[in-house]
Amino acid sequence: MKKIAILGSTGSIGQQALDIIRALPNELKVVALAGNKNLEVLERQISEFQPKMFSSSAKSVISHNAEFLSLEEIASHPEVDLVIVSTTGNAGLSPTLAALQAGKTVALANKEVLVMAGEIIVREASLHHAQILPIDSEHSAIWQCLHGEDNKPRRLFLTASGGPFYRFSRSQLAGVTPEQTLRHPVWKMGRKVTIDSATLMNKGLEVIEAHWLFSFPFDSIEILIHPQSIVHSMVEFTDGSLKAQLSSPDMRMPIQYALSYPQRWSNSELPRLDWQKIYSLNFEPVEYTRFPCLKVAIDAGRSGGTYPAVLCAADEVAVELFLSHRIGFTDIAKIVQKTLEQHQNITQPSLDEIVVADVWARERATKFSADYCKESERSGNTETDR
Amino acid sequence: MKKIAILGSTGSIGQQALDIIRALPNELKVVALAGNKNLEVLERQISEFQPKMFSSSAKSVISHNAEFLSLEEIASHPEVDLVIVSTTGNAGLSPTLAALQAGKTVALANKEVLVMAGEIIVREASLHHAQILPIDSEHSAIWQCLHGEDNKPRRLFLTASGGPFYRFSRSQLAGVTPEQTLRHPVWKMGRKVTIDSATLMNKGLEVIEAHWLFSFPFDSIEILIHPQSIVHSMVEFTDGSLKAQLSSPDMRMPIQYALSYPQRWSNSELPRLDWQKIYSLNFEPVEYTRFPCLKVAIDAGRSGGTYPAVLCAADEVAVELFLSHRIGFTDIAKIVQKTLEQHQNITQPSLDEIVVADVWARERATKFSADYCKESERSGNTETDR
Repeated sequence: MKKIAILGSTGSIGQQALDIIRALPNELKVVALAGNKNLEVLERQISEFQPKMFSSSAKSVISHNAEFLSLEEIASHPEVDLVIVSTTGNAGLSPTLAALQAGKTVALANKEVLVMAGEIIVREASLHHAQILPIDSEHSAIWQCLHGEDNKPRRLFLTASGGPFYRFSRSQLAGVTPEQTLRHPVWKMGRKVTIDSATLMNKGLEVIEAHWLFSFPFDSIEILIHPQSIVHSMVEFTDGSLKAQLSSPDMRMPIQYALSYPQRWSNSELPRLDWQKIYSLNFEPVEYTRFPCLKVAIDAGRSGGTYPAVLCAADEVAVELFLSHRIGFTDIAKIVQKTLEQHQNITQPSLDEIVVADVWARERATKFSADYCKESERSGNTETDR
Repeated sequence: MKKIAILGSTGSIGQQALDIIRALPNELKVVALAGNKNLEVLERQISEFQPKMFSSSAKSVISHNAEFLSLEEIASHPEVDLVIVSTTGNAGLSPTLAALQAGKTVALANKEVLVMAGEIIVREASLHHAQILPIDSEHSAIWQCLHGEDNKPRRLFLTASGGPFYRFSRSQLAGVTPEQTLRHPVWKMGRKVTIDSATLMNKGLEVIEAHWLFSFPFDSIEILIHPQSIVHSMVEFTDGSLKAQLSSPDMRMPIQYALSYPQRWSNSELPRLDWQKIYSLNFEPVEYTRFPCLKVAIDAGRSGGTYPAVLCAADEVAVELFLSHRIGFTDIAKIVQKTLEQHQNITQPSLDEIVVADVWARERATKFSADYCKESERSGNTETDR
């Protein structure tokens, strides 16, 4: 029986992780839950799963005898075997470090942790013999394809659905609304990730994540557009042979695998591909020009230092402004890029320097966005017209 | 440096194995070559690779100081590390047993060996701690997908291009000629396998081969039509996740893998998939009714005993008659099926009993074909008209 802590249990990944645990009561046990603002959902979860510990932004939550602890205390607690980090943005950074330093296995869904502080995270995991297991479907696929292979692969292919607007022209992209973007995603995900998927920023962050998870050079990580989201990623070996991992596009699949590893468990609630149907799986090279976030992100990853932290922070600000209708879809990339351009990079940064860069980027992106919005409103620029 | 013996070096697989060895002179060395009737090619190979031993149907071959030995002597020779069995039909049976009993690693391309005598072959391999490595692309794919996975998979999916006539109607199939069948195969293969691929008999034999190689029940081995021949097979695990192996359709890929295992070697002569192109990979369930060989083969595999040996022998006779224009394409299945119907099965047969069944089936199929040809010519039956 694995004892699980979920940091970010009220979000989309956290709730789907609880679906898995609910379906496998003989294998998995919740010992800690942590939410942020969604107190009503957190109270319901605590009442159902009766964890020993909890954490939240408000102590006032009805806790059913669960002990209130900080995220870091939960992450490093002796009662915990595996920590699911499904927080968002920079929130997962400090608890992930605490978990790794305590030698815990971390199932990581909060990709910003590795993007912002990959070098530190990987070093601490190695120092404390702690494992990081990916929950992102692409990284889970690559991880699965690498099992049992002794040799370093030649290339990693991250697949991307392309999002709902992949065939849109530049001017169509400029007119995209938050409502359109949040409608019918292929994957059931949180709002931030859904927007990032539509701008392809998410794929850029995944490239950086893959670089750190698999200690793989950026030049050998490629992106393929695969609209059906059934092949979750592929690995090419030195002999030209590839392995791919396939499943229904359902986040519960990679979540369960991170929890069951190295075993696989039967779970009748998970969807199965129906091969009695006709499948057509398409692959094409990604088109960078209409989706500038992708290249901006990969370039920030290559430059390293504090750039990736600035990337994440500026994107978080820009997506929030887009969701609140204050900037246009195509403004997200511009704001992120301009913030990166103004940044003075620090190479091999400490955690403190990363946190400072994050704060700086949020302020700068916010200020810059405000100027930018006003200016675009003043000029009546159609490209940023909403 | 692995020391390789190739039994069947003048055939399609044998020649492609030599292409691999030629490209990797620091890794692989030919110590024995064996051909059958193609003496000119064998002499050329002996002259180029200077093996210590050779075998052929005629001792008179110009041997450049190589020692003439029987196939069994070569297969069990102390100088040999790995034996490629790329003979055809029943010819590989006895040398494969000799190799396994001497504890050699066998890279098996001659699928009839496992189809005819799977139980004996698997038992001897286990007794003598000898490994059987598949060379068939489908089985190589499954083997690769199983690496590093502890748990028994749920299903195996063998892919099939469907051959050149997969969309043909019954009456179109009846009119198919040997010349049409041998033209433009997706895979570069021998004539027998090319015909077997078009009737789907080959896929039926592969199901039986997979059953023995992976000790997997027939009910959990499925066939998917995949015309592009890029996904070479797939494995579904208990959690509903699948792994697939992909490459260009080129037999040198699985041949090299069997030789390099557990490593993978870079070889610039092997083709690479070009992901700058657009790929559309299609999958659909197989249609059994128009391709009766498939079900006939799987049923023979399920029944076991001497049935699979009879299947192989009758098919070899029928394909030879088709190639010499004496019967029609759709007659192949009929002859095989009628021969099987007349067979008195022996369960858990000895090798001798398998050999007797093979001889019986050849005689019966030949006799039966002759009667059948005359009858169809007499009646002017359009379905068997050529």
